[in-house]
Amino acid sequence: MINRQAILHRPLSQYAYSTAEYCLTIRLRAAKNNLCSCVLHYGNRVDLTPLDKFCTLKMEKIASDDYFDYYEANISSDLDRVCYYFEMQDADEHLYLYADTIAADFPEDRTEVYQFPFIRREEISDVPRWLKEAVVYNIFPDSFADSKRGISCIAKDYFDEKTGQTLHTRLGGTIRGIIENLDYIEDLGFNCLYLNPIFTAAEYHRYDLLDYYHVCPNLGTDDDFRELVSEVHNRGMHIIIDGVFNHSSWYFFAFDDVVKNGENSQYKDWFYGLKFPVKRPEDGERPSYTCFAYERKMPKLNTSNPKVRDYFMDVCRYWLEDFDVDGWRLDVANEVDKDFWRAFRSVAKKTKKDSVLIAEIWENSERWLQGDMFDSTMNYEFRKVCRDFFAFGKINAREFNSRFVDMLLRYPFPIVQGQLNLLDSHDVSRFRSLCAQNSADSGDSSAVDKRFRLAELCLLTSVGTPSVFYGDELGVVGFEECDYRAAMPWVNPVKDNRDWFRELINLRKSNDCFSHGNFRVLDYDERGKFVFARETDSKRVVVALNAFNESNDSFSGLPDCKPIISYNYDAQNYSLGAFGYAIFEAK
Amino acid sequence: MINRQAILHRPLSQYAYSTAEYCLTIRLRAAKNNLCSCVLHYGNRVDLTPLDKFCTLKMEKIASDDYFDYYEANISSDLDRVCYYFEMQDADEHLYLYADTIAADFPEDRTEVYQFPFIRREEISDVPRWLKEAVVYNIFPDSFADSKRGISCIAKDYFDEKTGQTLHTRLGGTIRGIIENLDYIEDLGFNCLYLNPIFTAAEYHRYDLLDYYHVCPNLGTDDDFRELVSEVHNRGMHIIIDGVFNHSSWYFFAFDDVVKNGENSQYKDWFYGLKFPVKRPEDGERPSYTCFAYERKMPKLNTSNPKVRDYFMDVCRYWLEDFDVDGWRLDVANEVDKDFWRAFRSVAKKTKKDSVLIAEIWENSERWLQGDMFDSTMNYEFRKVCRDFFAFGKINAREFNSRFVDMLLRYPFPIVQGQLNLLDSHDVSRFRSLCAQNSADSGDSSAVDKRFRLAELCLLTSVGTPSVFYGDELGVVGFEECDYRAAMPWVNPVKDNRDWFRELINLRKSNDCFSHGNFRVLDYDERGKFVFARETDSKRVVVALNAFNESNDSFSGLPDCKPIISYNYDAQNYSLGAFGYAIFEAK
Repeated sequence: MINRQAILHRPLSQYAYSTAEYCLTIRLRAAKNNLCSCVLHYGNRVDLTPLDKFCTLKMEKIASDDYFDYYEANISSDLDRVCYYFEMQDADEHLYLYADTIAADFPEDRTEVYQFPFIRREEISDVPRWLKEAVVYNIFPDSFADSKRGISCIAKDYFDEKTGQTLHTRLGGTIRGIIENLDYIEDLGFNCLYLNPIFTAAEYHRYDLLDYYHVCPNLGTDDDFRELVSEVHNRGMHIIIDGVFNHSSWYFFAFDDVVKNGENSQYKDWFYGLKFPVKRPEDGERPSYTCFAYERKMPKLNTSNPKVRDYFMDVCRYWLEDFDVDGWRLDVANEVDKDFWRAFRSVAKKTKKDSVLIAEIWENSERWLQGDMFDSTMNYEFRKVCRDFFAFGKINAREFNSRFVDMLLRYPFPIVQGQLNLLDSHDVSRFRSLCAQNSADSGDSSAVDKRFRLAELCLLTSVGTPSVFYGDELGVVGFEECDYRAAMPWVNPVKDNRDWFRELINLRKSNDCFSHGNFRVLDYDERGKFVFARETDSKRVVVALNAFNESNDSFSGLPDCKPIISYNYDAQNYSLGAFGYAIFEAK
Repeated sequence: MINRQAILHRPLSQYAYSTAEYCLTIRLRAAKNNLCSCVLHYGNRVDLTPLDKFCTLKMEKIASDDYFDYYEANISSDLDRVCYYFEMQDADEHLYLYADTIAADFPEDRTEVYQFPFIRREEISDVPRWLKEAVVYNIFPDSFADSKRGISCIAKDYFDEKTGQTLHTRLGGTIRGIIENLDYIEDLGFNCLYLNPIFTAAEYHRYDLLDYYHVCPNLGTDDDFRELVSEVHNRGMHIIIDGVFNHSSWYFFAFDDVVKNGENSQYKDWFYGLKFPVKRPEDGERPSYTCFAYERKMPKLNTSNPKVRDYFMDVCRYWLEDFDVDGWRLDVANEVDKDFWRAFRSVAKKTKKDSVLIAEIWENSERWLQGDMFDSTMNYEFRKVCRDFFAFGKINAREFNSRFVDMLLRYPFPIVQGQLNLLDSHDVSRFRSLCAQNSADSGDSSAVDKRFRLAELCLLTSVGTPSVFYGDELGVVGFEECDYRAAMPWVNPVKDNRDWFRELINLRKSNDCFSHGNFRVLDYDERGKFVFARETDSKRVVVALNAFNESNDSFSGLPDCKPIISYNYDAQNYSLGAFGYAIFEAK
């Protein structure tokens, strides 16, 4: 019997999206190992072909998790208005699925099957090509460098005349420090920088903005930044900056005006949930305005106010146009109103067609990735799944497969290809520290690094844009903010993994199946064995790995050739020892 | 065992939406009769309360279909940033659900449970209150009236100097005809008019627009329409007009200019998929531009062109502001780009805060009802479900329950309350004709009317805004366009059901549980028995009906009181005869 409760299709979602004019991807979820065949029937929404004379495509099972199989078919036709239904067969039953109805018979007419109303050219699911091909180096500016291969680690406070505020630093990183080490970043193979905030702000992290139009004096001058962008572009690289529009500092000019002039302030409607009288409350006092989390020093902006919107739309345009940056990472994006982001997207794409917008949203971001707001989100789910498998060993390869596959299927595939995958960022414990928490490794001092390297291998061979936090290549560890945002260990790094990164990044960049190919799982077990292929029409790479601290038996799905990169691989028996891996070029 | 394949929750969807600041509705789907309890745990996204110290709410089972139970809880708190997870219990298993993970244990931390990032006041799921309270009379202008209680049925063609086109009519209805019969419409209890297109157009249906700024001369003058709106408002009623922005007539000035001036036309980018050379093709010739369906005389507009957009945004504003209409019904809305509709909404709501936007979308419209485009869609699903139950008897009450419940759960409830429910429109066979197709009624000449009246009873007591197509109250029938758009039978109607409509509309308007209350199914069987309650905190109405042409046994869920309206009801045995019904006021 066909398991009706497991069937899922949702029109105009990751289950039905356009990849080009006249091209659609259609997916169906069914219970695991339930169907013996699944066929997609499709036709023209507006002609009179009978439902039983539609075109058909056999759907391919592209993935399975613990409970479900996922089927996919790709329509390429001369139709721009498509309606469709599914035909499912198991051992003893034959059913149709149309518009959420499961039945043995056809419906009355074509208005009762699933509809893809019109494949509009403005609404193709995709992201700029360069984002899919990017390998991102994420720099926390205060911590990175203030000289060639060096950082002073001296906090330089600066008194800002304009705001009357002291601007703090902790380790003294500068824009010029980044410029002087671009050769280092380029040598590792990275082709994109993402910088945490660089505008004028009081705290060393610079998420409390005082001035959206200038580089923080502690970091250097606007001209330094112009030079950085120019140097980045000269090297064929891209640069993304951090935009904090959910909130500002409570010394931002508009809030300052509200505090000074109260209800007479022309900025009285610039902040969310603000009630008069307004003052800057002491620690422990309840602010009379909404904040970022409970940070009384960061009042939440009223981003639906047209004046606030206009102000920040100009900020958006200014950095893209006048400074030529290539995109924005947007802080706390899920708490800002969606019309703000729609306007932001419109200004960004108009100013620079290929600019990218990456939202900080930790959870499922489907609602924000429908083409009207962001190109991408920071993919913390990637970190969580890798943490539980590679670092903690809390889940086995079967469970890893389930969660990994679910992650790769949660958005249209071209959108997943632009997800900012990460193991580390300025907001989480260093992944390397997580690796050190695995009790299975007691006595094996090399295990931490092996786990870490396997996770990075996964990051750099998976679907999505890899983002590496500065210093991961030099063994930075830490559970606390001050540690995971530690100074770049230019001298005496804990562990020098630069060759490893260089090799993997080179592999990724020289095989376009990593940026553009699909992802198919070939083998996994109840321990650490996981094998997958990345493939385009012309190229196929197979990655086999063993995430556990024990030998694994023979792997299926491996091509009959010598691996291009491997460790602990027994070619005779197709098996991998503890933390082994092997990567093959298959055609 | 808990059936994992049946579990469904989707953040930021009809499964999780805000109904007011600090108020959320959270739903969960589980397998039918699977769980013995379901608890919602919720807390503050940004404080540090441990996950096991969250607030809890027992979730109520609000509905069931053939395969699933649906649970709901309503959070009302002082939180604007909420995270949550579910605790499920069946006879022998206890599991948590968080962020699409089903597990026996808690996750690592609060970033790993479901998130409602911020209850933004701009993004509450709701529609204008008057739409929920509206009972709509839908007039096809050519067919309705050109005098008090009369229509000439004489086609008056008119030569339009401006466009050089002959404007056709078929039956001669006018705006003045509507004005002269407003007393008739008001007497039946309707409090809202929806008019099919009234602007200048060549065909009698007026979906091929020549001039978006004027009432069609055949229908009367702009001043006639101004008078109609004023008369409508004087009676405390609302009026909605039809907007056709997907396509225009091929004699619309912009297309005319393109035909005349070719690539030199300033309107060359005003049409979708247009390639030069352009001419008006003969019947059978392939047009060099995209059309509405295959109608070569209706070229598709390029609604993503900013100039086209500006043009129609002014049209939107013009009729709302200068003519004071209360809303738009938008033709072929699912084929127009979504940014067009977002801009349209923005202009409409800015011009008239309480105006409503109703899209013509026949299928599931979730994608268009997220708050950024439309308030409502024409609910053809309502017609399909009622057709199969009340008219065809193709499904029994259990199946009807399943499909009806699914329909009521597919959007946030406040959105469902504003759905334009309909049995008839200008685009489908008259429902009365469908009722006549039921072979179970052979020999029972009264059955057609009884089926029709039961379906209308369902329409007028259900969740959503009822829309009645002109003439349904006077027995109009028809399978073909010329028939279901027949002249209003002012004289000698086939069947006079005005008392029936008056009684039901009065019932609806005098019990706010129909416009604002929830919907709970109390009883159904495998034949024609269906019982449901509509309830607010202060009021409860129970509706029992038997849709089949046979007696039904005792009904459960009926209150112990005399029905206010009934037919074929046996109060002794709580049973209903063929096509019986009974409506009770329960508190």
